[in-house]
Amino acid sequence: MERVWLERKVLSENDRLAAALRERFAEHNILCLNLISSPGSGKTSLLERTLENFDSGERVAVLTGDIQTENDAKRLARSGFPVKQITTGGTCHLDAAMIDRALQDWHLEDIDLLLIENVGNLVCPAIYDLGQALNVVALSVTEGEDKPLKYPVIFRNADAVLLTKIDLLPHLGVSIRNFDDAIARVMPQPRVFPVSARTGEGLDRWLQWLDEKRIRADL
Amino acid sequence: MERVWLERKVLSENDRLAAALRERFAEHNILCLNLISSPGSGKTSLLERTLENFDSGERVAVLTGDIQTENDAKRLARSGFPVKQITTGGTCHLDAAMIDRALQDWHLEDIDLLLIENVGNLVCPAIYDLGQALNVVALSVTEGEDKPLKYPVIFRNADAVLLTKIDLLPHLGVSIRNFDDAIARVMPQPRVFPVSARTGEGLDRWLQWLDEKRIRADL
Repeated sequence: MERVWLERKVLSENDRLAAALRERFAEHNILCLNLISSPGSGKTSLLERTLENFDSGERVAVLTGDIQTENDAKRLARSGFPVKQITTGGTCHLDAAMIDRALQDWHLEDIDLLLIENVGNLVCPAIYDLGQALNVVALSVTEGEDKPLKYPVIFRNADAVLLTKIDLLPHLGVSIRNFDDAIARVMPQPRVFPVSARTGEGLDRWLQWLDEKRIRADL
Repeated sequence: MERVWLERKVLSENDRLAAALRERFAEHNILCLNLISSPGSGKTSLLERTLENFDSGERVAVLTGDIQTENDAKRLARSGFPVKQITTGGTCHLDAAMIDRALQDWHLEDIDLLLIENVGNLVCPAIYDLGQALNVVALSVTEGEDKPLKYPVIFRNADAVLLTKIDLLPHLGVSIRNFDDAIARVMPQPRVFPVSARTGEGLDRWLQWLDEKRIRADL
């Protein structure tokens, strides 16, 4: 019981900070997207391909979270866009205070789209609000179609699911249909983008959706 | 600061319970193994294949953890061995109290080998002791060879790594060597078993290692 109470206290402090971030993002017309997945679902590869498709003049910035290493920031920085690594040092999710600190030396007026790559984990990132407008879950087809039912909170709150590594489907004995069915059981308005960062398949639909969200955020 | 203190308190209470479990396991000559991985690395398939290889008279039991659903317990129960699902209802790891409760209506004198399938997560399961003698990490080749460096705690404390889904290697552009090298950088005495639950490749070496550990626990 004590533990539940303690967790609630930490979460409500996080919610307060996240609300303040959300207000600042709105003030500066920033669309903030929180990308969540298991370790190794291909979040970083997908972000690399997404950034490649933006013109260099676009006002895009990336925060990328990890327990250890700055590998992802190094990979993403090749895009030329501002990228900052948040190393959590053991914590299994990003929280609003980490985002707040990471933004301190960035000028929010120079950013239209803030992409946050969360720590690889399908549990806690679902309940720590970062002030984002959009939640996107990446799910690799290699993980199996039972994952939406096993981690329902993260899929229930998702605005879109990126079904990644679809180039491996012929070797797996599962189909996109299997995943669609499982996702529809937990996600109120299923929106699934099957993609392959390797072949580029499906990226156009994902980029178009992102564009539409950006236009709407600007209005 | 307050948060760190709270986490320490929860952890030290867990350590106390885990030590008591460890003592009970030793008393009954039970070898307890904690299997950890990301969601979708193939823990359950691997346990299915492992259980298939035991004679029906063997004194093996399984506890399987998940946030939601009893799917894994249903799959594993087909083996005929005692299996119990622990549904954590939101918590991202098993803890010693959950194991203690799950064991309450089992007779420890009837068990030689207790296999625990942890919640799919590479972070928190590394720091919550369950009283196990062995830590085994399952890492799917589809997750990428950078994972040991990104989640070093879990690999540093592992007694063995099951490198799963090796049947997919020809389609991935990575080799077992890549994983061996990455694992050797964080694991003091690397012991890696490349396996495929689908083709059965490599399972013999894993089963032999497990047998040796069981014999040693019995002495």
